[in-house]
Amino acid sequence: MQPYATYEEIRRQPETWRTSLDFMSETKDPILRFIRENQPKSVLFTGCGTSYYLSLTAARFFQVQTGIPAHAVPASEVMLQPSSVIRPHPAPLLIASSRSGETTEVVRAVEEVRRRKLARCLAVTCEPSSRLTEVADFSIPLPHTREKSVVMTGSFTNMLLALQLFAAFLSENQNVLEDMQKLPRLGQKQLLTAEEQARQTALDESRNHLIYLGLGEYYGLACEAMLKMKEMTQLFCEAYNPLEFRHGPISVLNEDCRVFLLSGRTSREYDADLIPDLRKQGSDVKVVGEPTDSLDPGQRVDLPPGLEDGCRSILYLPFFQFLAYYQTLQLKLNPDQPRNLGQVVRLGKKGE
Amino acid sequence: MQPYATYEEIRRQPETWRTSLDFMSETKDPILRFIRENQPKSVLFTGCGTSYYLSLTAARFFQVQTGIPAHAVPASEVMLQPSSVIRPHPAPLLIASSRSGETTEVVRAVEEVRRRKLARCLAVTCEPSSRLTEVADFSIPLPHTREKSVVMTGSFTNMLLALQLFAAFLSENQNVLEDMQKLPRLGQKQLLTAEEQARQTALDESRNHLIYLGLGEYYGLACEAMLKMKEMTQLFCEAYNPLEFRHGPISVLNEDCRVFLLSGRTSREYDADLIPDLRKQGSDVKVVGEPTDSLDPGQRVDLPPGLEDGCRSILYLPFFQFLAYYQTLQLKLNPDQPRNLGQVVRLGKKGE
Repeated sequence: MQPYATYEEIRRQPETWRTSLDFMSETKDPILRFIRENQPKSVLFTGCGTSYYLSLTAARFFQVQTGIPAHAVPASEVMLQPSSVIRPHPAPLLIASSRSGETTEVVRAVEEVRRRKLARCLAVTCEPSSRLTEVADFSIPLPHTREKSVVMTGSFTNMLLALQLFAAFLSENQNVLEDMQKLPRLGQKQLLTAEEQARQTALDESRNHLIYLGLGEYYGLACEAMLKMKEMTQLFCEAYNPLEFRHGPISVLNEDCRVFLLSGRTSREYDADLIPDLRKQGSDVKVVGEPTDSLDPGQRVDLPPGLEDGCRSILYLPFFQFLAYYQTLQLKLNPDQPRNLGQVVRLGKKGE
Repeated sequence: MQPYATYEEIRRQPETWRTSLDFMSETKDPILRFIRENQPKSVLFTGCGTSYYLSLTAARFFQVQTGIPAHAVPASEVMLQPSSVIRPHPAPLLIASSRSGETTEVVRAVEEVRRRKLARCLAVTCEPSSRLTEVADFSIPLPHTREKSVVMTGSFTNMLLALQLFAAFLSENQNVLEDMQKLPRLGQKQLLTAEEQARQTALDESRNHLIYLGLGEYYGLACEAMLKMKEMTQLFCEAYNPLEFRHGPISVLNEDCRVFLLSGRTSREYDADLIPDLRKQGSDVKVVGEPTDSLDPGQRVDLPPGLEDGCRSILYLPFFQFLAYYQTLQLKLNPDQPRNLGQVVRLGKKGE
């Protein structure tokens, strides 16, 4: 029995995914009506911290699914420089994510975009009655993923899942819709293994510099995996696109490093080429993805096979969340209350 | 007298900026003809490492100047997932940067985009006779910024300057064009101060965790400042959007940290609010930007006043390049040849 809220919030994820899938199915018609009324020609995803990282993954998934150009920008840049990140023509849609619905930059970003009539706004949040749902044109509320911990875990995977399903509704891609429905079952099955592998990995304290690599849709996931570890343990963590890592940052590798490579089908042949380079200076490398015979089991964190790359996204998270959790316990820190952080970031009036 | 190529390549920058400005003025007509023939409705900037970071800054500057949507993506993602980052309609333009013109991902990205007829391609490089100039539709060659050092310094500021001028040609913004012409003179004037401040800062070895914060156009500059220090010294360095930093990463701050805030007019009031939070845990904070009375001189790195935010971009770099250089000497390392790195990253055939 683990006494921390974070633990339970990681563990219950597959059940909450089921609730999110059911809620999205029930809400499909009003969502599609909102989209048909607006016919967006481009989509800008925004958020802060964890919600920005999920925006990165959601934007790439959205563009792949729908063919509509989609990008992600931190909410502070939408708030401070709206015209430099969003154009009123052709019709854009702003999609803003915030667990609390109260994050200052996200709320002000939506207000600013509406005031200037730059775009219509859709919100995703765990708080149905928040500033964000008040100012947005349409909201997707996920109150079953409210969290007690300062650290966001299940709220990340559920908000991302909702946005991915939203994209799949538009594309009407049956394979993707079917893959999504499998996630709660596959996630439940994988949860125990993920926890045990994370616990074992965290026991080895000799690796205190952690590097997370993810390409395309997986870059946002790598950033989120990095942020969990960083905010909970204050260890040195960084995230990169895997091939970008070779262009400079690779110079830091040594025997203190552990590299996690979020592997997918698109990049598989380049990953195979990269792994020996990552190992050269004594770093440990763990490849997270579909099972493969070309690597020893100790070098792999296996995820369920058979899903398309994008649909596998949220299954990467439980391992990394458990890893940060157990590393935090190992360091005798409180996983629910990281150093220097609060549940919601609220800025003063006009930043003063 | 400094015996390293890197030193001379940092120092000579203002003179090379003059050459780049003159070259761009001479090439203005063919550039505008190429653009008028293609009438791009969106622009994707790409590159690897340092050239990706300059793409980030150039893309934001381009959109602000021209109103045409512009984004930046690492070249590996254009190479591996071209359809997920670039749409053939409405007419896009791909702008690829590479010092050597031989970087595998950049060359293959352009080849792949042309093969699929997704976009026309413009190249910026220091090597007029390279694979990149062969495969691109139009090239801006800057051979006067070729470098002997593995580390890119003047090639970054010159390729960025060329792309900014390209945007200003399109927007015909006279203030911006005039600001650009002032850069060599202002840069020359500031160079000695930048070097001396960097040398002094590097002497204090107690701060070995360096954090670089930049918003919007300055995010790419913060990343590049971070990468210089990381690849040359292997110290812990990270880069964030300043307000994003509060959403989690701020938990790492302690008395080992030095934070550099690249400050501009847009974010000034929020910066003023952020600085006390950055100092709370004993971290040192240096604000790099226009002079301000609200901070002690020891907390500032002053840049010449009077330019628009975007036009000031390349003036941020010499201080950070000198800082990485002197920190490298302090650690008795070779600035011209960082650990684990070569001049050009070439991948095997199809990544094998």
